[in-house]
Amino acid sequence: MADTATTVRVAPQKLEAFIARAMEAVGVPPQDAKVIGELMVRADVQGSEGHGVFRLPQYVRRIQGGAVNVKPNVRVVREAAGMALVDGDNGMGHVVMRFATERAIEKARSGGAAWVGVRMSNHAGPASLYASMPLAHDMAGLYLAVGNANHLPPWGGLDMLLSTNPIAVAVPAGEEPPVVLDMATTVAAYGKVKTKAQRGEMMPEGWMMDRQGRPLTDPRRANEGFLLPIGGYKGYGLALVIGLLAGTLNRAAMGRDVVDFNADDTSVTNTGHVIMAISLAAFGDVAEIKRAVDQVVRDIRASRRLPGVDRIRIPGDGSHATRAERLKNGVPLAAPLVASLNQLAGELKIAPL
Amino acid sequence: MADTATTVRVAPQKLEAFIARAMEAVGVPPQDAKVIGELMVRADVQGSEGHGVFRLPQYVRRIQGGAVNVKPNVRVVREAAGMALVDGDNGMGHVVMRFATERAIEKARSGGAAWVGVRMSNHAGPASLYASMPLAHDMAGLYLAVGNANHLPPWGGLDMLLSTNPIAVAVPAGEEPPVVLDMATTVAAYGKVKTKAQRGEMMPEGWMMDRQGRPLTDPRRANEGFLLPIGGYKGYGLALVIGLLAGTLNRAAMGRDVVDFNADDTSVTNTGHVIMAISLAAFGDVAEIKRAVDQVVRDIRASRRLPGVDRIRIPGDGSHATRAERLKNGVPLAAPLVASLNQLAGELKIAPL
Repeated sequence: MADTATTVRVAPQKLEAFIARAMEAVGVPPQDAKVIGELMVRADVQGSEGHGVFRLPQYVRRIQGGAVNVKPNVRVVREAAGMALVDGDNGMGHVVMRFATERAIEKARSGGAAWVGVRMSNHAGPASLYASMPLAHDMAGLYLAVGNANHLPPWGGLDMLLSTNPIAVAVPAGEEPPVVLDMATTVAAYGKVKTKAQRGEMMPEGWMMDRQGRPLTDPRRANEGFLLPIGGYKGYGLALVIGLLAGTLNRAAMGRDVVDFNADDTSVTNTGHVIMAISLAAFGDVAEIKRAVDQVVRDIRASRRLPGVDRIRIPGDGSHATRAERLKNGVPLAAPLVASLNQLAGELKIAPL
Repeated sequence: MADTATTVRVAPQKLEAFIARAMEAVGVPPQDAKVIGELMVRADVQGSEGHGVFRLPQYVRRIQGGAVNVKPNVRVVREAAGMALVDGDNGMGHVVMRFATERAIEKARSGGAAWVGVRMSNHAGPASLYASMPLAHDMAGLYLAVGNANHLPPWGGLDMLLSTNPIAVAVPAGEEPPVVLDMATTVAAYGKVKTKAQRGEMMPEGWMMDRQGRPLTDPRRANEGFLLPIGGYKGYGLALVIGLLAGTLNRAAMGRDVVDFNADDTSVTNTGHVIMAISLAAFGDVAEIKRAVDQVVRDIRASRRLPGVDRIRIPGDGSHATRAERLKNGVPLAAPLVASLNQLAGELKIAPL
């Protein structure tokens, strides 16, 4: 983890305000800037650093490059009792997805469950942010998205036609913390490969392969190969159907239309997502269902363990613990990141962090 | 594959009629017996042999053992605009799931999308059967289920608290065949392990591990270890959240409540499922969406290939090809299976196959 010698702790509120200032400086209305700040910092606070304030310079560059609409007319374009289709008008993904998730929750309150598709959105941070929003309403959440860069070929292929299309599911519990799964459909995320390269470490076999189909373990050669999907053809299939449901069905980008937003500051991504809210109350007594979730969680935690395993983890345990610690002690930011954020502040003529 | 010398080809209609006779002989009403025959043979025809007529003796044993209700009152017990909860009254899974899937399709016709949870069901055959039913109505299908035997411990654990909980997704295309993914959340299905044992072959590393966490490759030692989830902790997480949504939310069995229906002919399984139907018409012009699906499928098929790969497969390709071949030439049944079915016929005093 981060070396304390070169890391500063920043209070979440301070970080939110900084992000909001930066967003306002590039033309985002104050209310939307606040939403973006809150959601980006929520990512940092839960330990999803790759999706937090680290992304701010890139988001600013893309707004300045004309790739993102800072004053979108986010709206429901089609609707029925069990679904809605939201057009994000190319707004910031966080703003679009908060709107869509609120619609899903509202619709699930009357309809029991609701599927909301989204098109013309942008990168919106970690999948779990949106899957978790229904929890406060005693609802389960399900989120699917088309990723913003293709790193995955079809199984047996060489053309990078798929992204690491993520799925996130959040289920409310009673006394236990909620179960929150957030996973990409590849064995390793691309960010983990970059981290290995920075540290001069080799990757284990199974993360990537080269263009001959051989294991690729040197992260400095990452551009000579591709990420491997979980379970081989299964993960490929999962990435494909998630992309069809979150992208193609909504007429959002999928396959060869996907723009690599890491390498492009001017093109519209037309990012697609799906958010579902499923209300426990529609299925029965909420307290009773939550007690049943608690029971499953406790049985799993109490499982006998393999030699050397200190405890059994439930999906979300890591982020719940990180959140508790960081809300108390602040978000750790590495010195080079702080420097780059303050350089950005200088360029935007806003108060530094 | 099956050795032609010891394999006979049976016409699907003949096989359906045989299954229906057997079901009627143990008290299933003619209409339900017909549904069970059709759906079990649909599994055989698409190549899901482990879920087809092979299961008939076991189903009969469980009915005779009092574990399954042959005259269930399958009904919607809770309902809202976007969901329903079906109680299968412990009927045969095929009958319960056909009812539930028809409700999902009906509700999606007006509501655009519908989530139908199911409890008090039984083993219903391959996941893709139900995910595929909405296709004929220009709808996508999503199916989740709690498996009927726990073969998977939590990640790092030793207690078998999870099944290989499957997910299936079917998406309609235009000129291309539909995309149909049907996958368990383990690297290998238990049936594949049994096949390796029968053939005297070793398993590759990655399928199973022993109770010390070491790779287990001898299939004759399968009962000394467990199946491995796809992507390690990811597949474990997926199995868990699928189980919570398909089981716990519906108050169906999940975790330690799951009955191993392979080893038990008398206990009620209270099997849980989820079936969703998502209507393309709710999202836009159906033909346009299907053309977009075709485009993604064609781009993937046209991908450059790894050395030694003859073609890129789309999920469902294998079963589409098998279906076409078997509808023409009949379902291949190995001689020992035919013998066991005809022995069953003798016991039930029905006409043999």
